Amino acid sequence: MADFVFVLKNVLVVSLAMNMCLIWKISVVDVETLAFRWSSWMNMQQKKLHFHGVCFNGDKDDIREKDAHVSTRTQILATTSSGASPDGAKTVVINLDHGDPTMYENFWKQKRAETTVVTPSWYHISYFSDIKNICWFLEPGLMSAITRLHKVVGNAVTEDRHFVVGTGSSQLYQAALYAVSPHNASGPMNVVSAAPFYSSYPLMTDYLKSGLHKWAGDANEFNKQEPYIELVTSPNNPDGFTRQNVVKGDKGILIHDLAYYWPQYTPILVPADYDIMLFTVSKSTGHAGSRIGWALVKDGEIAKKMTTFIEINTIGVSKDSQIRAAKILQAISDSCDHANQTNADTFFDYSYKLMAQRWKQIREAVNKTELFSLPNFPPETCSFSGRNFGQLPAFAWLKCEGEVDDCEKFLRRNKILTRGGKHFGASMKYVRISMLSREHEFKLLTQRLPAITS
Amino acid sequence: MADFVFVLKNVLVVSLAMNMCLIWKISVVDVETLAFRWSSWMNMQQKKLHFHGVCFNGDKDDIREKDAHVSTRTQILATTSSGASPDGAKTVVINLDHGDPTMYENFWKQKRAETTVVTPSWYHISYFSDIKNICWFLEPGLMSAITRLHKVVGNAVTEDRHFVVGTGSSQLYQAALYAVSPHNASGPMNVVSAAPFYSSYPLMTDYLKSGLHKWAGDANEFNKQEPYIELVTSPNNPDGFTRQNVVKGDKGILIHDLAYYWPQYTPILVPADYDIMLFTVSKSTGHAGSRIGWALVKDGEIAKKMTTFIEINTIGVSKDSQIRAAKILQAISDSCDHANQTNADTFFDYSYKLMAQRWKQIREAVNKTELFSLPNFPPETCSFSGRNFGQLPAFAWLKCEGEVDDCEKFLRRNKILTRGGKHFGASMKYVRISMLSREHEFKLLTQRLPAITS
Repeated sequence: MADFVFVLKNVLVVSLAMNMCLIWKISVVDVETLAFRWSSWMNMQQKKLHFHGVCFNGDKDDIREKDAHVSTRTQILATTSSGASPDGAKTVVINLDHGDPTMYENFWKQKRAETTVVTPSWYHISYFSDIKNICWFLEPGLMSAITRLHKVVGNAVTEDRHFVVGTGSSQLYQAALYAVSPHNASGPMNVVSAAPFYSSYPLMTDYLKSGLHKWAGDANEFNKQEPYIELVTSPNNPDGFTRQNVVKGDKGILIHDLAYYWPQYTPILVPADYDIMLFTVSKSTGHAGSRIGWALVKDGEIAKKMTTFIEINTIGVSKDSQIRAAKILQAISDSCDHANQTNADTFFDYSYKLMAQRWKQIREAVNKTELFSLPNFPPETCSFSGRNFGQLPAFAWLKCEGEVDDCEKFLRRNKILTRGGKHFGASMKYVRISMLSREHEFKLLTQRLPAITS
Repeated sequence: MADFVFVLKNVLVVSLAMNMCLIWKISVVDVETLAFRWSSWMNMQQKKLHFHGVCFNGDKDDIREKDAHVSTRTQILATTSSGASPDGAKTVVINLDHGDPTMYENFWKQKRAETTVVTPSWYHISYFSDIKNICWFLEPGLMSAITRLHKVVGNAVTEDRHFVVGTGSSQLYQAALYAVSPHNASGPMNVVSAAPFYSSYPLMTDYLKSGLHKWAGDANEFNKQEPYIELVTSPNNPDGFTRQNVVKGDKGILIHDLAYYWPQYTPILVPADYDIMLFTVSKSTGHAGSRIGWALVKDGEIAKKMTTFIEINTIGVSKDSQIRAAKILQAISDSCDHANQTNADTFFDYSYKLMAQRWKQIREAVNKTELFSLPNFPPETCSFSGRNFGQLPAFAWLKCEGEVDDCEKFLRRNKILTRGGKHFGASMKYVRISMLSREHEFKLLTQRLPAITS
């Protein structure tokens, strides 16, 4: 009997332990589910999703615009937490509004020692990085890493240029506007870009109602005999095409946004050689969270004024992120230099192959239906990789064919969140879809697009 | 003979080796000297030292002002590379214009494992940190660390507040202006602060000629019957006094800049409980290079608008720096919690003792001459440390007594670079001197001040 009781007690203990484990597991799952449901519910109840000052009315499928573009940050959680279960594939909201470059995460997970940064607490405490440089808050190591990477890739001239680092290229865009706009003019300087243009340009130009500069719309339609700043994004955001300036006039100042002039997105043809060129790690290496961009500037006075803007705006740029970006850029250059000695893919090999695969998949998905179309790009030979290919843009500029007039709304009904053409100064028949998401979100997109019926 | 030749050869080799060493040493010193001389020379040749858009004319001792304050970034190199040799002590330029908080560096050098951050390259790649938070780019770990530290120190109410992170508190100041200024008003909102006010306020308010807000000067003189924003910096930069709002009116919105409300600078009396409160790691822990500030905001709509400003301005804030700041703030809270169990100084013990020592030294130096005076502060009991002391400001607000009308110019002739009173809306008989420099610079200051003759 005593033995039996002993055995029974043991079984009971084991059983209780199992129960505890199960209860714990269930509650963890429930907390996660609840967190998501609470978040979605809260936002639906509030009937607005706030981002860039835009209110998104969940019930009425109607957008009350204040600014340039819509975001739906809550619903990012949807695809992030979804997995790709058969049910989830149909009901989950896919948020491809932002160009959040999470697609490169898996590559970086394979890289450890050579790209990990260790920062003791007494490192780079000062405001200053290099007081002999015009841009006194630029870390010399980042400047070297940028110079080297441009040489390795061959996508920009760095000789005789001044370097300015920014908290992302957004800040550098604003710094460039500040630098080239006359400060004693009678009115603000016109700022134009050919439609479809990056949706944030109008907002970044006008949000402070500056007396220095004002958004003047589509560069193709600009015909005032006044000074102007023309923004040239090449490859272009949203549509991926290579661009040149379009305004015919001699009073223009050009700012070239080259965020996507990297060999995973476009064949590199020549080293870019413009007066003001903007780049960012967000799109080149995928480290958007670090908020690091850089400008290559011919004119020392413009570089000084850009530096002044960043001094006043944020008293410099995070040194922690500059050091991290430097290490990552150096590791990419190292891997390119040693590519023949190792069998491992370099970052640009990996990212090119992934972009090429995604573009193949989205074209296949779109070709299964007559509802949508995508732009086509003629192949050219990349001087960096030697590959012959057409553009592989970071965004798909999708057109709703036929009778659908508001493509963003149409896709939203099908639980795909995109950014509509009107935010880019273009027709509402177009939407911009991020190609840079994590794999499971992209997979859901290519499953869902061909299944949509009009 | 063979032996003699052998010995001679050996001596020759040793002699040559010594020569090589000496030549190498001289060239290294020369390169350093040259770097400094080149830098100084370049700037003197250009006859301007550029910083915040101000031109500093080295030959004529004359300042052509465009903006709010002078900097002399080149000459920072002077004190940094000086050492404190007897000659150097007399001839080297001491730059105490900026509040670069390098005085805490030695404390952080003693802290290793508990404050070192390790960042693999796949960490925090995304733009997003916490999409359920109004401030979607705020790292949850930083929010916890800030909340905890305010509770430990007792210097601010965090309950029922919205947290907004910024690229330093400068960005948050601009975000707050954007958030509280009406966007549909007929003209820009007045922005005031009681003189002497922080020299960057006018510049940060007006540099973009915004239609939303404009600098309206000394709050003590503001008597328009119009809406206004009053900036209250307490303890005040530049003079260290505790402040309240001064404008008598019911149309005002207050922004409290509490960058110096920490127990190394001032006795903590009560947890601050205002509508919009700004803090920064630059002055609390000394990590200016990380560019991390935070705002505690009562009103959710204002927090949303501040978030929108930072979205448009820089699409969020460096996650690398947020993670680092979180680790450092948590380590400070940990050390305060365990202070009774260890004999090691906490950060606030160390920084209080160092500030108290420096204030003792500068008062002794000033008391040796009749040329200068410093403000006096009545002692109060700090609720955090239990210590009874008067303010120990981050800046010495020094007055030139007697016939000297331009104290900045007077000190510059004596190779001490400071920021003159006019930049703070005050008399030119005052200057602001940073108390936060490295030890050797501070030592040079306290040696030189009593030696100055009129």
